[in-house]
Amino acid sequence: MKTEGNVLIAQGGGPTPVINSSLRGVLEEAKKYKFITGIFGARYGVEGILREDFIDLSKESKNNIVNLAYTPGAALGSCRRKLVGDDYERVISILIKHNVRYFFYNGGNDSMDTCNKIACIASDYNIKVIGIPKTIDNDLCLTDHCPGFASAAKYVIISTMELYKDIQSLPIHVCILELMGRNAGWLAAAASLAKANEDDGPHLIYVPEVPFNEESFLFDVKSCREKVCGVLVVVSEGLKDKNGNPIAGSGITDGFGHKIPGGVAQHLSNLVIQKLGIKSRSEKPGLLGRCSITMQSSTDREEAIAVGSFAVKSAVNGESNKMVSITRISNSPYKSEMTLVPLNKVANVERVLPKAFINVRGNGIEESYRNYCLPLIGDELPNFLTLKRVFKEKCE
Amino acid sequence: MKTEGNVLIAQGGGPTPVINSSLRGVLEEAKKYKFITGIFGARYGVEGILREDFIDLSKESKNNIVNLAYTPGAALGSCRRKLVGDDYERVISILIKHNVRYFFYNGGNDSMDTCNKIACIASDYNIKVIGIPKTIDNDLCLTDHCPGFASAAKYVIISTMELYKDIQSLPIHVCILELMGRNAGWLAAAASLAKANEDDGPHLIYVPEVPFNEESFLFDVKSCREKVCGVLVVVSEGLKDKNGNPIAGSGITDGFGHKIPGGVAQHLSNLVIQKLGIKSRSEKPGLLGRCSITMQSSTDREEAIAVGSFAVKSAVNGESNKMVSITRISNSPYKSEMTLVPLNKVANVERVLPKAFINVRGNGIEESYRNYCLPLIGDELPNFLTLKRVFKEKCE
Repeated sequence: MKTEGNVLIAQGGGPTPVINSSLRGVLEEAKKYKFITGIFGARYGVEGILREDFIDLSKESKNNIVNLAYTPGAALGSCRRKLVGDDYERVISILIKHNVRYFFYNGGNDSMDTCNKIACIASDYNIKVIGIPKTIDNDLCLTDHCPGFASAAKYVIISTMELYKDIQSLPIHVCILELMGRNAGWLAAAASLAKANEDDGPHLIYVPEVPFNEESFLFDVKSCREKVCGVLVVVSEGLKDKNGNPIAGSGITDGFGHKIPGGVAQHLSNLVIQKLGIKSRSEKPGLLGRCSITMQSSTDREEAIAVGSFAVKSAVNGESNKMVSITRISNSPYKSEMTLVPLNKVANVERVLPKAFINVRGNGIEESYRNYCLPLIGDELPNFLTLKRVFKEKCE
Repeated sequence: MKTEGNVLIAQGGGPTPVINSSLRGVLEEAKKYKFITGIFGARYGVEGILREDFIDLSKESKNNIVNLAYTPGAALGSCRRKLVGDDYERVISILIKHNVRYFFYNGGNDSMDTCNKIACIASDYNIKVIGIPKTIDNDLCLTDHCPGFASAAKYVIISTMELYKDIQSLPIHVCILELMGRNAGWLAAAASLAKANEDDGPHLIYVPEVPFNEESFLFDVKSCREKVCGVLVVVSEGLKDKNGNPIAGSGITDGFGHKIPGGVAQHLSNLVIQKLGIKSRSEKPGLLGRCSITMQSSTDREEAIAVGSFAVKSAVNGESNKMVSITRISNSPYKSEMTLVPLNKVANVERVLPKAFINVRGNGIEESYRNYCLPLIGDELPNFLTLKRVFKEKCE
């Protein structure tokens, strides 16, 4: 006999292009069970729970639920609120009050920590709690990758390919492209897949896993510029010096006390101008890289739906205090399956880019990373034309 | 009897998502005429002409020529070189040496100036010169709009729509989005088409046509923030104060002596943090906004091809020292036709955003702009889902 009661789902942290796909997966699966009497969504994450600000998701049309998968942002609203003190007990008492028997929290590192703490108390009240992974940063551990990452990586790869064609055709600047990633370089590394030939850009990639050294950077840029005119450099927003201090900062911190980086590319571009006397400019798509439905990966979307659906299946089968994890079964054709991992092993552990993917000089990404990343994109990447360039004979 | 001889085409200034579509139009049209004995492309604009660095475009496959329309960057290579002194005479002597009878220069304001000067001398030697317009900035006069603008505008509209869904769902920042446009606000204005409802973002749009006032800006942002949490502000890269000085600069100038702006959004974001104590961040897609084939407008592509083809038709019919211009015939369904305008009337005249499109307070765009811009996009814009949000009844 399954426990009768309501489902509550909340979204936490930064949106991804597929966070709503997981919501769709949860809703489509939850509707299958008669003992699930209501399906509610908390508005703006745990803040909505504390305010008892819930919407009745059973009232949404089937069409709306399908279209969630093609909707940017977090459809329920999200937050970066860190629960403290008796917040956890309050959350539990609200879950009980609303007869919530199945609680799903869809988020990244910080959200999995919140989810773990709620789950620990919830177990005393027979409330099942499952974490649904989500982060473009790809820094959750115990999963091959995180829903959201592949779409953001696809944005990075195609944008970098397009940008390099532009720079190559008007090679008057060193161009520095800043990509998201405070502590993990997974997304900046994806730019390496934009490289078609050895001499093509991006020529240099710097990730937060390698302490940033200004002199080496300037030396690298100068050396590149001697070989090619249009130099393309990719940097993670979270580059830090050898003491762990951000090399450029916005001066603000988020709700979890993490320093928010800001303007690394512009800072480095200014350095290139001032110290090397070479023209330079910077691009920083920033949030555009985590909300692009246009660049959504079909594999990512399908997995995100499956992760949501698997979370519900697991909870109704009595599982709790677990996060859904993706295991890669094969690369060609790409196949994955869903499993469960303990929330307490995931919470607050950041999985950074393994050293094996970073080149020895710390300014580029190894070819092996392509094998990890490319199958997740699912869709074919563009293959941009280069003219044959048959040179006209000179007239004498 | 038509003049027998060669065609030469060059691309100048910043690439657009359809600059290669115009190249395709030129090549497809030029191949139709038996008296055109050779079709050559100059590499890297006028620099390639001065170096006699030409490629034989008749050697490119039909497939390559078709695919030019889906290739970002400037396929021949471009430059920002300003010709001076006897450069013009040298260009002419090189055209004569290579038996070039039909010369096409595809570019923006600066390129049309170059083209005009070449055309004036070329007329003495029976060389036909036609300018092919191109600029995402949309600042060429005597044409309804410029090829390249609609695709860049589509990038702006869809990116802004996606970004606002993200900001709305995690409304913790004032977000400042910087878009291209040194002196003309056409592209920043396009962000206004992303607004679905009155209260939706972008809430404020600042264009270079209106002298920027820091106090008004801070007042506007504060007022918005009192009404909505997730404030989205759009700014042109080229915002200037009342004395015409850029409010933020990269400190470098281009080949034509124009100051290159840099980091306006980050500068304003810092102001919001420091002066208002409100969290803020900035996004600056920069060059990504002029090279996105993914966001290419189909109407823009077709017109860019037609503009190239019309340039060749005009030249072989004896026209010279003209630029191809686009005249809008109707809006619904959208129709346009090609005409010719004198190059000397176009050269060096910047067409900025008309006052009628800017609201009285100088911080937003009037609805009339939508009627100008939307038909040029051609393709359907996304219609992102908002959940019905039937609120769950409170439990007592």
